[in-house]
Amino acid sequence: MASNNIFHGYAVREKGGKWEPFEFDAGEIGHEEVELRVLSCGICHAEVAMAHNNYGMTQYPFVGGHEIYGVVEKVGSGVTALKVGQRAGVGWSAGSCTQCEYCEMGHQECCLASKGVMLGRHGGFADRVRVKWNAATPIPDGVEGDHVGPLFCAGIAVFAPIIDFVRPEHKVGVIGIGGLGSIAVQMLKRWGCHVTALTSSETKRKTALDLGAHATLSSTDEEELKAAAGRFDVVISTVHVNLNWGLIVGTLKKLGRLHILGASSEPIAVASMALIMGHKTISSSGAGSDSHKRAMLDFVKRHSIQPEVEVFPFARINDAFTRLEANPQGRLVLKW
Amino acid sequence: MASNNIFHGYAVREKGGKWEPFEFDAGEIGHEEVELRVLSCGICHAEVAMAHNNYGMTQYPFVGGHEIYGVVEKVGSGVTALKVGQRAGVGWSAGSCTQCEYCEMGHQECCLASKGVMLGRHGGFADRVRVKWNAATPIPDGVEGDHVGPLFCAGIAVFAPIIDFVRPEHKVGVIGIGGLGSIAVQMLKRWGCHVTALTSSETKRKTALDLGAHATLSSTDEEELKAAAGRFDVVISTVHVNLNWGLIVGTLKKLGRLHILGASSEPIAVASMALIMGHKTISSSGAGSDSHKRAMLDFVKRHSIQPEVEVFPFARINDAFTRLEANPQGRLVLKW
Repeated sequence: MASNNIFHGYAVREKGGKWEPFEFDAGEIGHEEVELRVLSCGICHAEVAMAHNNYGMTQYPFVGGHEIYGVVEKVGSGVTALKVGQRAGVGWSAGSCTQCEYCEMGHQECCLASKGVMLGRHGGFADRVRVKWNAATPIPDGVEGDHVGPLFCAGIAVFAPIIDFVRPEHKVGVIGIGGLGSIAVQMLKRWGCHVTALTSSETKRKTALDLGAHATLSSTDEEELKAAAGRFDVVISTVHVNLNWGLIVGTLKKLGRLHILGASSEPIAVASMALIMGHKTISSSGAGSDSHKRAMLDFVKRHSIQPEVEVFPFARINDAFTRLEANPQGRLVLKW
Repeated sequence: MASNNIFHGYAVREKGGKWEPFEFDAGEIGHEEVELRVLSCGICHAEVAMAHNNYGMTQYPFVGGHEIYGVVEKVGSGVTALKVGQRAGVGWSAGSCTQCEYCEMGHQECCLASKGVMLGRHGGFADRVRVKWNAATPIPDGVEGDHVGPLFCAGIAVFAPIIDFVRPEHKVGVIGIGGLGSIAVQMLKRWGCHVTALTSSETKRKTALDLGAHATLSSTDEEELKAAAGRFDVVISTVHVNLNWGLIVGTLKKLGRLHILGASSEPIAVASMALIMGHKTISSSGAGSDSHKRAMLDFVKRHSIQPEVEVFPFARINDAFTRLEANPQGRLVLKW
């Protein structure tokens, strides 16, 4: 029935507008697509930026949502990897091509033909969402709840550099104790590391300690940062603010690594001599591969890691975005 | 005999002064030291900077020289790794401690107690030089000539990131075709890579092709750099000038790496989003480990790699430094 393809969600209809109820015809399901019934969906600063067309690529009406937790309700005729009734999660990507050089290497997060789930199509702020089968990661039994959606953006964003670059004996700094940072602290604690939370907020210092951090440090106080020179093997930055990156790099040990997950408005600027003398590295990423997502789900299950979330019903979506502006420590999630 | 400990070399006696003949008493050889008779010694921009006290750590009279090719003439009573008559090379370090965490890991280039061979002591611009035994790397038969000294600074500087980060199937860019860059092109060609030389000089484009580069590219022309977007797996920068690092990072493929060997006066500044979207890395180093030095010597022997050098007799040391200002394509070497 055609009515089966009418999805109901929330869209911003013009630059900077409010979220409003919106229905659209998703058309017939594609050969390689799966359709998820959305149980819940996290919200992120990326939706704020997209609603304002800050990236210059928003198409209105804009249905956001890229931290999707759902149940497979329909599969295309070519899909064997997922079955109806199975729970699955979707992050930034609506599917990788499987055929480019990056997919071939298992780096689907770098797929040259990847489409964003809310770029030129409609995301998870709806009752249902369609993606290519390989964008829907099966969720193992034992991982369930309102926190699951955020694992597919905030969670995998921080888990990818952990699995790639962090060893359990490392001393690790996490800058920013928000949606990403609070998950990073929990994961790194279970990963076996010594974890220091870097934040400019006294409240969030307490939060980080509650989440398992061993220590805290100011992310902005120059004296405190200077006193921490040479302390960390890895520092993961989750913030979108401009910091004194020279001082942050100074907190790294020789051979240390600063990994950037947050997009600041000013360039990351560091004296070349500071890098050279310490043989230091600045790396960066925005997502994780499909195998890293599976590894993450296995790891959070084993360690019962549950990112803290505040849940709003979808009907209160505008309240949730107002709440986001207050920079809460946990992730915000919309739920049907 | 005490006279055995009187070394004859060339020193700068005050900030920015000329190189003048200088003799000094090296004292008795230490338990763990070796004494090399200097056959030849490369010169480097670091000596210019040190002669002018640009790093704020020069002690005058300043005897430079940290690309030393010599023959072991004397060994301390505790030295078993080297024998009198053996040829050896010395680079930036006058010895690593063997006991810090970095030495323990085999990263002697990051030794926390390392002393520079020309920092607070006298380097290779002399008839003899003393270093701790582990700063003198034995040179295999078949590696000999005036080009050997530069292998221990310029050579190992470029070989360290090659061994650590470059695979033979990679497309690699080398920025700057001077002392370091010309060696890098030769090594990368033999390493099996596709090599592109990035330079602002038309003359050096030709030089690079003569050295084996497959292609050349302007390091400064914005249109040319933009047209090369997404081309390289690794770019190694050997220059000390300020480039448009955003455009350079743009020439990297996704997952690509910019490795910084040259110290520019302005910070390396790159938009965080450019790093995040491409999962790109900026790394850096200034030297190589002891095992990397041995691997380099083995590799240059197998492939008969001989960095191009211009040789000046030690008596013409001031002419050699004048020549250095002309930014020659090869390395300059002083010879007794």
